[in-house]
Parts: sequence; C-alpha cells; structure tokens
Amino acid sequence: MVDTTAFRDAMAMLGGAVSIITTAGPGGKVGMTASAVCSVTDSPPTVLVCINRSTWAHAQFVQNGILCINILGAGQQTLSGRFANRTIGMDDRFSTHTWHELVTGSPALEEALVSVDCRIVACHEVGSHTVFYGEVRAISLGENRGALIYFNRDYYGVQSARLE
Amino acid sequence: MVDTTAFRDAMAMLGGAVSIITTAGPGGKVGMTASAVCSVTDSPPTVLVCINRSTWAHAQFVQNGILCINILGAGQQTLSGRFANRTIGMDDRFSTHTWHELVTGSPALEEALVSVDCRIVACHEVGSHTVFYGEVRAISLGENRGALIYFNRDYYGVQSARLE
Repeated sequence: MVDTTAFRDAMAMLGGAVSIITTAGPGGKVGMTASAVCSVTDSPPTVLVCINRSTWAHAQFVQNGILCINILGAGQQTLSGRFANRTIGMDDRFSTHTWHELVTGSPALEEALVSVDCRIVACHEVGSHTVFYGEVRAISLGENRGALIYFNRDYYGVQSARLE
Repeated sequence: MVDTTAFRDAMAMLGGAVSIITTAGPGGKVGMTASAVCSVTDSPPTVLVCINRSTWAHAQFVQNGILCINILGAGQQTLSGRFANRTIGMDDRFSTHTWHELVTGSPALEEALVSVDCRIVACHEVGSHTVFYGEVRAISLGENRGALIYFNRDYYGVQSARLE
C-alpha cells in the first residue's frame, strides 16, 4: 500500500471539473463543492459522486435520496470556494446566486455550465467515503463559457473552442 | 429519465483528465483511453475507473485483476488518440513510447504525469458499464508538464503554475 501523502500528491495531478453538489428535502438543504464526480453510463443515464462520510452533509444526501450536480464554468472559483468553506453556513452559501429547481427539488444553479438532477439509486461504502450513484432525472444545459478545472491544487479556466 | 443525447451533451461539459488504463497478465496486455477515472478515498488509497462491458478489453481487466492508470500530460493528445483507436492493435499501441512495470505488472507509461498502479478489489455493474475499484499498490510521479484535459469533445492543455 502507498502512503496517504503520496496518494494525495498523485491525485492532485488528476485534473478535473469542479461541481457544487446539492440536495434538499426532509434532511435539509445543503450544498458542497466536489471534484470526485464521474459519468458512469448512458444506459440508463447515471453519474457518481464520492462524498466523505465524515462530512456532516453526508447524512442529508442519504436522507433526501436526491442530488444535483452543478458543474461550474471558467471564472466561478469564488463560488467554488464559498461552498468548500466550512465556516460559511448553508443559507449564506446559497445567498449570492440564483438557484431554481428542476425535477427532484435539489437546488440547481442558474449560472452552472450544466446542472444534472438525480435520484440516488445506490450507495457503495469504500473506506472513508460513500460513492453515490445518481440516475439522471433532468438536465439544464447553460451557455458554454468554458470549464473551471482544478489541477495541482489550483484553479484554471479552460475556454470553449467557440471562445478561442 | 432524460434521453441519451441530452445526457451525452451534458457530460461533454464535465471537463476532465485523460488517462490510458492498462492491464497485463493471463488475460493479455491491453491499454485503452478513458476519462471516467475518479479518486475515491485515501483510506485506503482507492480509485475507480468506469469501463464499458461491450469493450473487448473489459474481459482482460477482469481476468488480470490489476490495472494501471496513466494520467496524460498537456500535449499527449496523439497518444490518447492512439489508445482510443479501435483499428490500432495492442502491440502497435504500445510501440511508440517507453513502458515499464511498477508493482502489479500492468504497463506504466514512463512519460505519464503520474502512473497509479492498482489491484482491482471490487467491481460494480451499473447499466452498460462496470465500475472497477482499484486499491493503489504503487505510484510513479513524473515531471509536472501540465494536464491534458478533455472538455466539450476537444483536448486542452492546462499548464502547471510552475510553467506559467
């Protein structure tokens, strides 16, 4: 087995999109920044999100049984930081932008690159994390303003071809 | 449920790293390009890869029980295309670059941003795909030359801060 620091340094080299994962319902409304999001299959349309079980928001996702993946665009790093900052309460996190609902009732960010609204259909516990599998119930595709990419512990904007 | 085209268009907006996933052993040596790679947990260090069951290489991963994730760097899009091209045989795919072995015996690309060598510890079938969970046995961290990112069906180079 490799050590944790070496593993984290290696995973810092796995560049990827930044998303705000939200849920709402009996467990309460929460939103958190995540980069461990992955497309699984298009038959049926399914995505996965890995969430640490020690995160207090974990229980809300389980209880509500729904989640929305709001993929951020280039330039939205401040919003990413807001939803990753444990000292900022939930009401404050959601206060600076416009959120709406698609099908499940999870908050969808109006300015997201795309919002992927899901029902959680399976949870697999792996070490410290739960892998949530979400079957997609609705999609809201925004304007392509380029991607926000997290790589080597920093943010980068990747512009769409149309903008180049 | 949303339709397949809408889902694919949405997932095209999920920018991410490009990796060549390899295996070797009794099932044979194979390598294929993949973007559905995700860090799961650091306790124990675990990653996941989603592979279509209709891909002929799928059986080799199952049979060998090991895989290596070779994360590509900025500028390696030609190599990505080589391992995604079904008309190019396995011997030819591996012929243009130097590969070595870490611990499991899966091919590790010498010029990868990082190679993450894994033993497959679980497989979950989800629709058309299998999600392979790999416990990390060895890591080879290369020079940071920036990330190769696939976004909106095109390649982008994201340079490391050190190169800017």
